[in-house]
Amino acid sequence: MIGREIKVFAPATISNIACGFDIMGFAIDYPGDELVLRVVEKKGVKITKITGDAGKLPLEAEKNTAGMALIKMLEYLNVGFGVEVEINKKMALGSGLGSSAASAVAGVFALNKLLEKKLTKKELTEFALKGEEVASKAIHADNVGPCLYGGFTLIRGYDPVDIIEIPTPDDLYCTVIHPEIEIKTSEARALLPKEVELKKAITQWGNVGGLISGLYRKDYDLISRSLNDVIIEPVRAALIPNYYEIKNAANNAGALGCNISGSGPSIFALSIREETANLIGDAMKSVVDAMKVESTVYISKINKKGPRVI
Amino acid sequence: MIGREIKVFAPATISNIACGFDIMGFAIDYPGDELVLRVVEKKGVKITKITGDAGKLPLEAEKNTAGMALIKMLEYLNVGFGVEVEINKKMALGSGLGSSAASAVAGVFALNKLLEKKLTKKELTEFALKGEEVASKAIHADNVGPCLYGGFTLIRGYDPVDIIEIPTPDDLYCTVIHPEIEIKTSEARALLPKEVELKKAITQWGNVGGLISGLYRKDYDLISRSLNDVIIEPVRAALIPNYYEIKNAANNAGALGCNISGSGPSIFALSIREETANLIGDAMKSVVDAMKVESTVYISKINKKGPRVI
Repeated sequence: MIGREIKVFAPATISNIACGFDIMGFAIDYPGDELVLRVVEKKGVKITKITGDAGKLPLEAEKNTAGMALIKMLEYLNVGFGVEVEINKKMALGSGLGSSAASAVAGVFALNKLLEKKLTKKELTEFALKGEEVASKAIHADNVGPCLYGGFTLIRGYDPVDIIEIPTPDDLYCTVIHPEIEIKTSEARALLPKEVELKKAITQWGNVGGLISGLYRKDYDLISRSLNDVIIEPVRAALIPNYYEIKNAANNAGALGCNISGSGPSIFALSIREETANLIGDAMKSVVDAMKVESTVYISKINKKGPRVI
Repeated sequence: MIGREIKVFAPATISNIACGFDIMGFAIDYPGDELVLRVVEKKGVKITKITGDAGKLPLEAEKNTAGMALIKMLEYLNVGFGVEVEINKKMALGSGLGSSAASAVAGVFALNKLLEKKLTKKELTEFALKGEEVASKAIHADNVGPCLYGGFTLIRGYDPVDIIEIPTPDDLYCTVIHPEIEIKTSEARALLPKEVELKKAITQWGNVGGLISGLYRKDYDLISRSLNDVIIEPVRAALIPNYYEIKNAANNAGALGCNISGSGPSIFALSIREETANLIGDAMKSVVDAMKVESTVYISKINKKGPRVI
């Protein structure tokens, strides 16, 4: 093992998907994080380099999502070696695209690839979540799940973590716009209501049922009718200037639905043709440009495979 | 048309299905209501006879669920005839098995069968809901939907009513026990919290996603893990003496899950073998017998067809 090296990519993920707050997410082909992992004699985890983070991420392994995930995984494996890790962040931090989950997943996926006796995705999930916890201060699997499994995933519950892979229709495209405004996940969390109206909760779980049915049936109309959030979006929209203008632009350009990605500020829209996905990107960007805010648009199919060796 | 007569059966339904409060239900083969409909010259709806209701149901058409459903349907059709209806209630009123929905569905299904130009199930749903409203004072489609469509149905939303048929695995059996205690739907509704913890709502919609996925995948383990209700059951269980003892008896006898049917007092349990379904019935009945409460047990496969001509 000593001296072996591997380079991997782990994708960005869109969590919540409108109605599925905290329980659903999907992976996209692009962007994502890259990670190089080397097996070394010295036990433990050493992060040798991080690029693309504008110096914001800590090199101390136990404060880094990939680092902590690998620490937990090595502890479990109880092996006679350690790892050195180099992380290349290929998406902005705090963008709402599951950046911290991507690094954690990249780490455990890379190490697993080098093992003779591979761990299951379920086991890797547990370690990646320990890493993700470093960044989000709470266990949320709606980025780690889709990042590791690919496609649409449902986090049915947490005791234990129960990840269900939902079929991903081939025709789906995702358009993401990342306006360069800062939203702290912790602030976005603080905005959440502690209690919600039962009536709204019923509307929400009807839509969850509809979205999941729509994905199983490849019923794009049903997916579109279900892509609504009556609980979280009304609160978090306030964090993104002109959010509803951006959303309307996406819907008018032909989106099946448009909503906040994770805790934002990125906004995603689903559609079923590449041409439409491009039009949606242009339409959203026009609104953000008019605000004199920098932004990046990503257009991608749904990533069905999760992380990969590069 | 005048003089034509038809006799139909419409099935009992289990609404809510644990996690799917107000949005899910399924039909069972047995029990159900029977209805005879005759086309007569005189316009309007006349209920000639109701049996099996212990004299509790009104003969006035506009106060009867089947009567009102047919009034609305005839108004819409704007035809030159009326109907006479005889209703044979084959299940107890207020049992939590969708008795009022069954009569309403039986009425519109019967009339539709006699029409040359048939209405769609979607159209029939609207009229049946108008009938159901007479009894429940509110529009709830989680009994009408499965009664009319058969199998498991999701009511995604209400504006307009959006009923999604969910695949029904062949192996499923349903055991129902109806303990003869009275629960008024209006009282059961009054108990409902106006607000629920966001955390619990998230657990609930995770389970809705899991239940629907389990039905699509025929994954009985997943169905079982998802058959939980953290919001309504804790409140309504108090209306049914020894509810948790009955539920534990069902689960110990091999149920995938057990919960309150509709607003109770009936309790349903799902399982995947007829033998198990019978054992569950025995186990639940033992608990109720020990309470010196009369009860009826129904064991049935899931009814995939909805109403039928008999």
